[in-house]
Parts: sequence; structure tokens; C-alpha cells
Amino acid sequence: MTTENWLSRGEAKCQSIYNAIPEKWRLKDPVPPAAELRDVTGPYIQQFLSAREIEITESDAFEITSQTTTGRWSAVEVTEAFCHRAALAHQLVSCLHEIFFDAAIESARELDAYFAKHQSPVGPLHGLPVSLKDQFHVKGVETTMGYVGWIGTFEGHRDDPRRGTVESELVRELRNLGAVLYCKTSVPATLMSGETVNHIIGYTTNPKNRLLSCGGSSGGEGALIALRGSPAGFGTDIGGSVRIPAGFNGLYGIRPSAGRIPYQGAANSFDGQNTILSVIGPLATTARSLTLLFKSVLTQEPWYHDPLVLEMPWRDAIVDETRDLIKKAQAGSSTLAFAIMHWNGMDRIHPPVARGLRIVEQTLKRLGHKVITWDPPSHATVHELAGKTFDMDGGADMRHHFGLSGEPKPPQVIVEENGTALTISAIAALNIAKREYQKRYMDYWNSTVELTGTGRPVDGVISPIAPHAAVIPHEYHSVGYSSFVNVLDYTSVVIPVTLADQAVDTRQPETSLGPHIEWDYDADTYDGAPVAVQLLGRRLQEEKILTLAEYLGSEIGPS
Amino acid sequence: MTTENWLSRGEAKCQSIYNAIPEKWRLKDPVPPAAELRDVTGPYIQQFLSAREIEITESDAFEITSQTTTGRWSAVEVTEAFCHRAALAHQLVSCLHEIFFDAAIESARELDAYFAKHQSPVGPLHGLPVSLKDQFHVKGVETTMGYVGWIGTFEGHRDDPRRGTVESELVRELRNLGAVLYCKTSVPATLMSGETVNHIIGYTTNPKNRLLSCGGSSGGEGALIALRGSPAGFGTDIGGSVRIPAGFNGLYGIRPSAGRIPYQGAANSFDGQNTILSVIGPLATTARSLTLLFKSVLTQEPWYHDPLVLEMPWRDAIVDETRDLIKKAQAGSSTLAFAIMHWNGMDRIHPPVARGLRIVEQTLKRLGHKVITWDPPSHATVHELAGKTFDMDGGADMRHHFGLSGEPKPPQVIVEENGTALTISAIAALNIAKREYQKRYMDYWNSTVELTGTGRPVDGVISPIAPHAAVIPHEYHSVGYSSFVNVLDYTSVVIPVTLADQAVDTRQPETSLGPHIEWDYDADTYDGAPVAVQLLGRRLQEEKILTLAEYLGSEIGPS
Repeated sequence: MTTENWLSRGEAKCQSIYNAIPEKWRLKDPVPPAAELRDVTGPYIQQFLSAREIEITESDAFEITSQTTTGRWSAVEVTEAFCHRAALAHQLVSCLHEIFFDAAIESARELDAYFAKHQSPVGPLHGLPVSLKDQFHVKGVETTMGYVGWIGTFEGHRDDPRRGTVESELVRELRNLGAVLYCKTSVPATLMSGETVNHIIGYTTNPKNRLLSCGGSSGGEGALIALRGSPAGFGTDIGGSVRIPAGFNGLYGIRPSAGRIPYQGAANSFDGQNTILSVIGPLATTARSLTLLFKSVLTQEPWYHDPLVLEMPWRDAIVDETRDLIKKAQAGSSTLAFAIMHWNGMDRIHPPVARGLRIVEQTLKRLGHKVITWDPPSHATVHELAGKTFDMDGGADMRHHFGLSGEPKPPQVIVEENGTALTISAIAALNIAKREYQKRYMDYWNSTVELTGTGRPVDGVISPIAPHAAVIPHEYHSVGYSSFVNVLDYTSVVIPVTLADQAVDTRQPETSLGPHIEWDYDADTYDGAPVAVQLLGRRLQEEKILTLAEYLGSEIGPS
Repeated sequence: MTTENWLSRGEAKCQSIYNAIPEKWRLKDPVPPAAELRDVTGPYIQQFLSAREIEITESDAFEITSQTTTGRWSAVEVTEAFCHRAALAHQLVSCLHEIFFDAAIESARELDAYFAKHQSPVGPLHGLPVSLKDQFHVKGVETTMGYVGWIGTFEGHRDDPRRGTVESELVRELRNLGAVLYCKTSVPATLMSGETVNHIIGYTTNPKNRLLSCGGSSGGEGALIALRGSPAGFGTDIGGSVRIPAGFNGLYGIRPSAGRIPYQGAANSFDGQNTILSVIGPLATTARSLTLLFKSVLTQEPWYHDPLVLEMPWRDAIVDETRDLIKKAQAGSSTLAFAIMHWNGMDRIHPPVARGLRIVEQTLKRLGHKVITWDPPSHATVHELAGKTFDMDGGADMRHHFGLSGEPKPPQVIVEENGTALTISAIAALNIAKREYQKRYMDYWNSTVELTGTGRPVDGVISPIAPHAAVIPHEYHSVGYSSFVNVLDYTSVVIPVTLADQAVDTRQPETSLGPHIEWDYDADTYDGAPVAVQLLGRRLQEEKILTLAEYLGSEIGPS
């Protein structure tokens, strides 16, 4: 395919996305350039909405379902409000790949009819609009995953009967739960980037500061939810792809351990690689909304429908135990214990991120908790393990999919384009090295029982998600703060903390961290960018970490 | 290394194993040849034991611990009885690789001292001798895994400081639980064989019929426990290696799903292959003993010590639910539902195995349960997936380890010696094909809800473990009846059913099964061989399937 061809095909698809926005919701006037107006959240986007639409769309998923499952708010009203706001969001930051508002409103009507008839909801997500990263297949809707070569195909296969006819397992479950599906969100082609860029929608910017990236690869989710064009959505994470956009957009997001949320029937990059599995997790505006979505999916018993899902229902007992620990801490009769990883020994963090960690540390201390410094096995090792895994096939999968259209690889994609595929013995050695690293890290975690004074090892670990609060385009140089979690297969919940502030986050040397921090930090450009941390738990400790995130988020989050 | 060298080194090691048997326990007279005396269990081995030793060694692990954890039986007395009987067993069927009775008696003494001081046991396995397949590292003891080239090394590495100094995670946990370790049992080098043969101990025969194989690869475990030289032990299973020897020796054995029992720090073949994981499971003389061992290990929270173990404690709630279903069935108020797989469409089963299935079917019907015929997705497909996985590295791992000494591959090893290693894209394709097969099988299992009348899909599936009851040496042609379970990662518990009987198990055509059954069946030679079935559950349903096996085993087992 010639250059003209892939460019024009990408542009045509881009136009068709825009065309799917009803005339009434199209912006009449041009949006001011980012240099003049960085932040398009809040008052800027609100000007296009009614007070009622603002009320609905600025409620969190938990609140919305408390209204829709009791019949106080109709599914149609809620759906229309979010469709409107998502349409605006896309026009502000290019965050959508697919728009299917008509189908959404139709299913909302059916939900309302069901409620009218039975006086009870279809399920716990009755009437809740849920956005989906463009890896999930939805009937009648295309999946491009950012590849021009996938336009008009099924995952790049022409004339495949599955095109437009199949649904991913998670989509089936969301429908059972009463969720309303209405749009799919932008991703970087390959999914292997901390920025969201492709030859269809171009570049998704950060709604809080359009000079910056929304993060990636679930970048469209992050941007859309930050603009409240969605109350909650599902992303995927193999190296940080849920957590980076959650953090960069001031949202909550969870990267659960592999085996809890069904990936069955979703598109993916380099499928069949099973050294580090990509996992699905929700992003939302509150921690309690993450819990709602996570828990609701588990009621569908996905372990009977996806062979990679573990038979592990939502464990209320762990929630209760964790709440009990919190209550005891609040009563002053004991404490929780946390570790903070101030840096990973490789990637210098920017002043806003360092300040975010300090805010969290001070909050933990104010709440009476024990705080220790995290001093784990070498992060250089784990960074190398992740990199080797991502480059395992020498870029063959990526070359194939870019090759379908002839489009070039965007420079932000972190996978090597012309690497060498690993041999089977190298893959086995990598799998062993990964397991041995996991074992050392596990033993280190166990060893903290000597330091906490609680009789338990640390309850959670606080870490940056990236060296920067959001990122200047093309300046995302290392995913080391996120990808180690994937190697370890730990649970991680992102908690928003504050906003970068050029008046405070100056280029002061952070002597306590060793090297002087000034690496490509630009206090002016980063001003206003969301700062977040991740709260890590051990493998499969989603119930504990979500419960802790709910508690800590309410104490440390930006008000 | 010259032929003379590996032969003589293997022989020297074999002699050193014999030398570890105390003089007083050595047989004075030669054992009659197998053609004259097939069965060396029961009266034959009992003649060398005291009545008290027989009482102790013919108790199951459950009964033994009920005595030892209450101080009624001393750990030393129990340990000495099993050491004596294990020594005899080895002299009858060559089932041991390592003997460390002195260390065992020393730890039994410590256990007795602990009990005397605290009037309570160290743990639920206090004083229970537990045998180990020769993959587990025990301090002061060698691990050869059947390779001559591993003698005097750590897993083939010379001058490795771990030699004789490290212990596998499971060994550490067993010691915490109060178990007494005293011997390691024979395996086929490579572990990839349904017979147990190597150039150290030669060939481990079947104690019930020494013309036949004891099975493999946990063959030494099967033979030793059949002779009651051990009440229970741990084997491993990647294609049937726990279940085949359990079935061939009239024992119970469980192949749990991956992620429940810790493999950390055990030797293995082709480590780092992660398409089908080898798993550890116990073998024992009763189902309740399997439950005891399995449950005890989980009390050690192995998920904090092995990165591949899932945080999934023993689930009493599932046991209670299952018992409730059984009680309701016994009261006639509802039924359980089982499927029977009479054959896999590829490997014709022998008359004793077909009769075993009929006995189980009749028992299930007598108990009032629903029985349907299992008609799953093609087993030819799953057989191919397993074979591709086992041959994935083209035999490189095996060649390396045989090459350390120059010994040849025994013909019974099922891995191709000079195959072609898969490329990374072929491995990825295999992983996808495996997952897709698992999904089809899962959907089929779900679909049986339409046939059971219980409102649930089948509660378990009954299948042969092999085409034959034990096997004539060199005549194990397909592990298709066992390896499909590993591809699916299902739970499987072996239940002994009966013994082959040449008077009954004639060459009658089993017309209902399709092809005429007479494939290499020799009614005379197979006479007396144990017949067993496996009870399959879905992935991670160990609690349910162990509970059902306890129930069904007591109804169908040989009396």
C-alpha cells in the first residue's frame, strides 16, 4: 500500500468517527489551541452541557448505579448525557475510535423497559455507560486497535466471518450486568507505548493539560473519563497501560493480577506470548467505582467462560479483614504498615512526583501508620526482564500488522522494530529468570515483617507510576516504574494525589534521592498535570488493595 | 564419557543405595523371579515384618497422624516401621533412589521430644513418614532424577554450592508440618515416560504383578506406597506422572491444577517451558489421606514462598457444599451428575479398563446419580497439543542431561531425541491453540447443564487413565488418556476400582465402543493388575473432587 493510501485510509476512518457524532453535539466554534487553553475539563467542557447533564456525568459509577438500579434515573437519560459528553470529549482531545450511540440508546431503552416491567434492575450495572478500550469486540462495531491495516477487517483478516459479529467475553458479561456500551477509546497501535498515537485519530492529548500526553496505552480511556465523558471503562495493562493513563488523568485504575478479569475474545498484540500476560482492569473516577466494576464482573463467574480466569469469586472476607485493620488503626489500637519506593535506582523522578510521594507519606504518618523505605531487589534486573519479554519476537507481530497497510511505526512505540526473535532456550531462560526474580522480591516483601511492628509484612507499597506527572510528547523514556509490577504480577491501584504546580515544583535538588533531579523537567509545561501514586499489593490481593485504596484515596486525594 | 564409565557409575550409585539399607533389613534369600511370583504385596512382604510393623505400615496416613499427633504412637516407632518396609520394597521392585533412614530417625526423635515437652504435635503431619519423588532437594541427600550425569552434582552442575545444602520449598513446608522424610523414589530419567527406567536403579516393576511396569514417571512412589513402604508421598505430573503410577498400583493420587502446591526449588525437566506446567500432587492409599496432605500444605501459605502458587487456601466451604450435595443424593432428594468417557476416539482400551468403567457406571447408577456419556471436543487435537509441547525444544534439554554422562535415552522416553525446536511464533501459535481448545472444552462442559437434570453441568467426569491396567514393559504407546488433563489444567483424582482378572477380562469385542478391542491385550500377563479410573473436575476444583473421590472411592473401591 502506498503512503497516500494508508494516510488517506486513516483519515477516512477518522472522519467516519467524527461523522458518527450527531449534528447537535458537534462543536460550532474551534477549540482554542493548547498553548492558550491547557485545561478543557471542568468549566470549559461544562459550558456545552445542561445542568442536569453535568449532574449526571459528574456522578461516579457507584452513585449512578445507585440511581439507575433503583429506577430513580432512567438508563436513557444517563446514556444520552454520557454520549453527549463523550462526543464533546472526542472533539477536544481525540479520544475515541468507535462511536455507537444509537445502539447504546436502544439498549438503554430496553433496560428501562425491563425495569418498568420487573421493578428491578437487570444487574448491578443496570443503566451504567461503560467505555471500552479499542481491543474489545462489540457486535456491529469495528476494532482497529489503532492499526490502519485493521480497518474493514477482523484483526487484520479480510473476509473473516467474525468481523462485526462476535463479542468479547467481557462485553457479554457487561451486557448481562446491565451496562450500556456506547464507545471505544483510542490506543497507540501495538499498545506498547505510554502515549496514545496512531494514524487514525492522531494524538490523544491530556484534558487537564493539552500540552501533554494522556498516557497510554489505555490513553483514550484516561482522557475520556477525565473529561467525564465516561464514568468508568476497561483498559488493559502489560507494562503500565491501565495505570499510566489513570495516573496521568487524575483517576483511579487497577491492574489486577492475571486471571481475574476475562481477556477471552479480546484483540491483543503478540497473542500467545505467555511470559507476561496483559491483563484487563477498570479505570474510574473513584476507588469505590473500581470495586463495583471489578466485583460485578466476578459475579458472572468468568472462570467458566475463560480458561485463563481463576475460580476466585470476590472475597468479602478479605474486605472485612482489611476494614477491621483500618478501624483498629483509626481507634489507635494498632497500625497498618506501608513502604514507599522513592525511586527505582534508574529513572529520576520529577519534582511533582516526588512531592506526591511526600504528600502520601505525610498522610500515612498523620493517620498513625508505620512507613518504611522500600529497598527491593534490583529494578535494573526487572526492567531488563520486561524489556526482553516485550521484544521477544524481534518485533515480528508489530511488523506484520503495520505491514498490512504500510504505515510506519510511531516513534513512541517501545518495541524494537527489527530485533532478533528469542530462541526457545532463551525464552525458557527468561521464564526462569523471571520466576527467580519474583521469588527474591517475594522473600524481600516477607522480610519486612521485621520492620513493621505489626506482626505482618507491609500491607502495601507506594510507588510512582512514571517519572513524570503526565508527559511531554516524545519524552516518555522509560516505563520502569510501571512494568516491574507486570513482571511480578502484583495488584496495583492508582490513587490520584495532586496537580503539578510550577510555583512549588521547582528544580530543587532532591538530595535524599541521590542524583540531582532535573532530567528533562520543565516546570512550566508540566504545570497542572495530575500527580498520582500506585498502591501495590501482593499477587491476587485485589480485595485488600481496593479496600485500602478507598480508604487512603479519601485521605490523600485532591479535594 | 565412555560406555563403561556411565554404566559403572550408574552401578556404583545403585550399589550405594543398597548399601544404605541397614544390614538387619537386607533380604537373606533371593526373591523368586516374577514369572513364579508376580505379587509381592500382602503376605509376601509381610513375612519379613513384625505384627506391630504390619499394623503401623498398613494404616493410612490419616489414621497414622491421628495416632502420632495425639502421642499414642511415637514418631520413632512409626518411622522405623516404614524405613524397614521401604528397605524391603526396594529390594523387591527397585523403587528407591535415595535412602536416609538415619536422618529420618533423628528427626523422629526430635518430634517425640517436642511432643513430650509440649504435649502437642509440631503440625498436622507430626510423625508421618512421607516419601518424595527424586526431584525434591533434601539437605545432605543427592538428587539424580535418574540421570547418571547428575551423580555427584547439583542438577548436573559440578562444584555447585547448592549440592546437598538446599531444600525444595515443599520439603521445608513438610518439615514445618511435622512430616518425617526418609527416602526418595525412582523416576525415569527425563520424567517423560509412563514406565520407570534409568541407568541407576534399572527398572521399577509393579508390586502387584512384577511382569508389569509400576507406571511413571512417579513410578517409585507408586510401587513403594503399593508395598506400604510409605503411607503417602509426593509425585509430579505433566502428562500423567502422578496418575499413571497411582492407577497402576491401586492407589489414590491427585493431579491438582497448577498453582496450588509449591514447585519452587524442585528439580525438573525443561524448566522454563510454560505452556503446560508440571504440577506436584500426593499419592496415598486413601482419598482422605490425599486431602490431609493437600490441605496441610496449604496451611503453610505457599503463595508467600512460591511465585507460581495462587493465594487460595483450602476452601472448607466447597467441601461443605459438596457434602451437602452428597447428603441430598443419599436422602433421595436430588442427584449428582457424572459423565463417563468410555474412550477418547484414539486409543483402544483393554477389557479390564472397560470393566472398571462399567463398575463405576453401575455404582453411580445404584447410588441414584445421573450418568451421561462424555462427548467432548476432539481428543486427537489435544493429544497433538500435548505432544508438541513435550517436544517443544526438539529434545535439547534431554540431550544435554544424557550427554553429561554419555548414557543413551531409554526407548520408553516419549520425547523425540532429535526433533526441531519450535520458533517463537510456533510457540505463540501453540499457546493460542491450547487456550482455544481449553475454551471449547469448557463450553462443552457448560453445555451439559442441558443433560443432567440437576441445574448444574456434570459434577465430575470419569475417564480411564491409560488404555491398560498397568502395562507390559515397552508397550505403553500413548499417554492420551492422561495428558489431555494437563492441557486442560483440570483437577483429577485417581480412584482404584478392581484388579484385572483373566477369567473375566477376556478378548470380548466391546462393540459399544466402536472398534474391536484386542490391541496388544494379553489376558494372562495382565492378570492381577490394578484397574483404576480418574475423576476429573474443572480447573482448581480440588476441594470438590477430593470430597467426591472420598465418597465414590468408598462405594466403588476394591474391598
